[in-house]
Amino acid sequence: METAGLDETQPPYFVGVDVGGTSIKIGIVDDEGATLARGSIPTESDTNPQEAIQQICQEINRLASESGLPEADIQRIGLGTPGTMDIPRGMILEPPNLPAWRNFPIRDELARASGKKVTFSNDANAAAYGEYWIGSGKQYRSIVMLTLGTGVGGGIILDGHSVNGESSHGGECGHVVIDRSPDARICSCGMRGHLEAYASASALIQRCHEALDAGEESSLHEVVATGERLTGLDIAVAAEQGDELANRLILDTADYLATGVAIFLTTLDPSAVILGGAMNFGGSNHPVGKCFIDRIRATAGKMTLPVVMDHSVIMYAGLGGNAGYIGAAGLAREDFYRSQQMSGSGV
Amino acid sequence: METAGLDETQPPYFVGVDVGGTSIKIGIVDDEGATLARGSIPTESDTNPQEAIQQICQEINRLASESGLPEADIQRIGLGTPGTMDIPRGMILEPPNLPAWRNFPIRDELARASGKKVTFSNDANAAAYGEYWIGSGKQYRSIVMLTLGTGVGGGIILDGHSVNGESSHGGECGHVVIDRSPDARICSCGMRGHLEAYASASALIQRCHEALDAGEESSLHEVVATGERLTGLDIAVAAEQGDELANRLILDTADYLATGVAIFLTTLDPSAVILGGAMNFGGSNHPVGKCFIDRIRATAGKMTLPVVMDHSVIMYAGLGGNAGYIGAAGLAREDFYRSQQMSGSGV
Repeated sequence: METAGLDETQPPYFVGVDVGGTSIKIGIVDDEGATLARGSIPTESDTNPQEAIQQICQEINRLASESGLPEADIQRIGLGTPGTMDIPRGMILEPPNLPAWRNFPIRDELARASGKKVTFSNDANAAAYGEYWIGSGKQYRSIVMLTLGTGVGGGIILDGHSVNGESSHGGECGHVVIDRSPDARICSCGMRGHLEAYASASALIQRCHEALDAGEESSLHEVVATGERLTGLDIAVAAEQGDELANRLILDTADYLATGVAIFLTTLDPSAVILGGAMNFGGSNHPVGKCFIDRIRATAGKMTLPVVMDHSVIMYAGLGGNAGYIGAAGLAREDFYRSQQMSGSGV
Repeated sequence: METAGLDETQPPYFVGVDVGGTSIKIGIVDDEGATLARGSIPTESDTNPQEAIQQICQEINRLASESGLPEADIQRIGLGTPGTMDIPRGMILEPPNLPAWRNFPIRDELARASGKKVTFSNDANAAAYGEYWIGSGKQYRSIVMLTLGTGVGGGIILDGHSVNGESSHGGECGHVVIDRSPDARICSCGMRGHLEAYASASALIQRCHEALDAGEESSLHEVVATGERLTGLDIAVAAEQGDELANRLILDTADYLATGVAIFLTTLDPSAVILGGAMNFGGSNHPVGKCFIDRIRATAGKMTLPVVMDHSVIMYAGLGGNAGYIGAAGLAREDFYRSQQMSGSGV
């Protein structure tokens, strides 16, 4: 049986495009999720997004020729973008830090410029799909992924499908309420009490400054005295060196996150909650990172029905900053095979 | 094309069985969800569940003959049970108030006794499926249903599929944390701070007793003085008559529930959150019920990203106590059509 554009002796290839606030990561990925070539171009936040579309297409061509792949063998492109979006219409709505991209029909413009079909998704859901496909979650069907960085991102994969939501905003895990008191911390979105307002790297640093300003003893006073901006890494290093405040701040962060983790476990009963993003304190092979994730598990266990808790794992992500483009490519692959099935080719 | 047991000129019928703590509701439902006949038998919590299986089969036969339906036209049975369960193995694990049913392989025993295939699910997920199929949620693909009664049950339907969870406990919405403080209220499950500990009818009554014991003025003192047990209805009636304490207690309940509603909206971005169960204060046609749901919406709106909130509705359930058996039958229907498709009959 023949299918347009598909040589059945030739496995399909996919491109993943992960649009971030400062760079756009692009990779060519094979049918098993292995990367043939990857690159990145700067995100020009102020200029016309049409230029970025052109640059993305040029980079795809460059990566294809670098890997010796005829561009025609690329079956489909997956595209993940940050912020609010309208997935059915393929529109970016209000991307943070990208004012010129507002209300841009990015999916169809990329399809037109590249000549390929494009699967459009939220960047955090794409990252979750990447971890589900070939990362830490690859042995599971249902995962929740939290991306811990400046904010707290979230993506949900249930039974192998990304939860996009009915208005394109499924999995906004950083914005669940964990403190309903009237004086709860204010989130980046302007509302009070959201997980992100407590458990992001920015929130950790803010809580650290508050403690230092309140006169708590800590080696971190020396960092602040240098005039450098305090970072999550500074706090991690101080914790490793036995600084009590730094340790407490990290354990508090774990406890806040655990509340979110308990909420997601209880609501969805997934096999795994996967923690990605820069704020991993070195991951599970590092004493601080291990202490962090152990504490999350211990605290979540006090809030989650044992029948759910006992069947789930909490683990660090495996793909690092590549999860986004790999997952975007994986979602394109899912759409590719679905359209093959629907066209009756039986692939 | 012929398929075993299916006369293609004859639409299929399904049976739904909803096992509750005091009664088992059974209904025969057609392919559109309309009930041909329904009945109920008492749940014998102390006796051997095998007897209940026999009674269920007798009741199905009785209902079939009552509605003039040849029993052979019933294609499949849907079964919903409360408490913990192992869905893949078809086992009830620890049903509340049904000690004799512990670790009972109810799915296969019912299949053996009835000679029909049985689709097994959690009762709250079945109720959610009922509302999704032909109830308040019938125009939507993705809903979250909360069942407000002695406890707070939950069921989630995403893209038309019940979220059973990886360990058979998806949608345990009553057990999400809404208060992480160390002195948070203790839930029926023994853990602290869960939604159910604040927003169930039991919790409402407990909060009422606490306020009365603390000497707050209220007409409800008179109810307590009669020696009768205080009920949610008493509080609703007092609120309707202008009792300030009763009103405040109901609005507080709405605010607690709103925290849960905000969590589910943010996590899943469904089209609707549907409130079922006895604690509906008369529903949206009653002033107290309308005030209750309006307050839930207003408070949830302060905690939920506008892009999600603006595309969702919060509404009362439409099927009352029938949602469970109707949904169980609907889940059986879904499995029936899936197996028809897999067997290639193309139905």
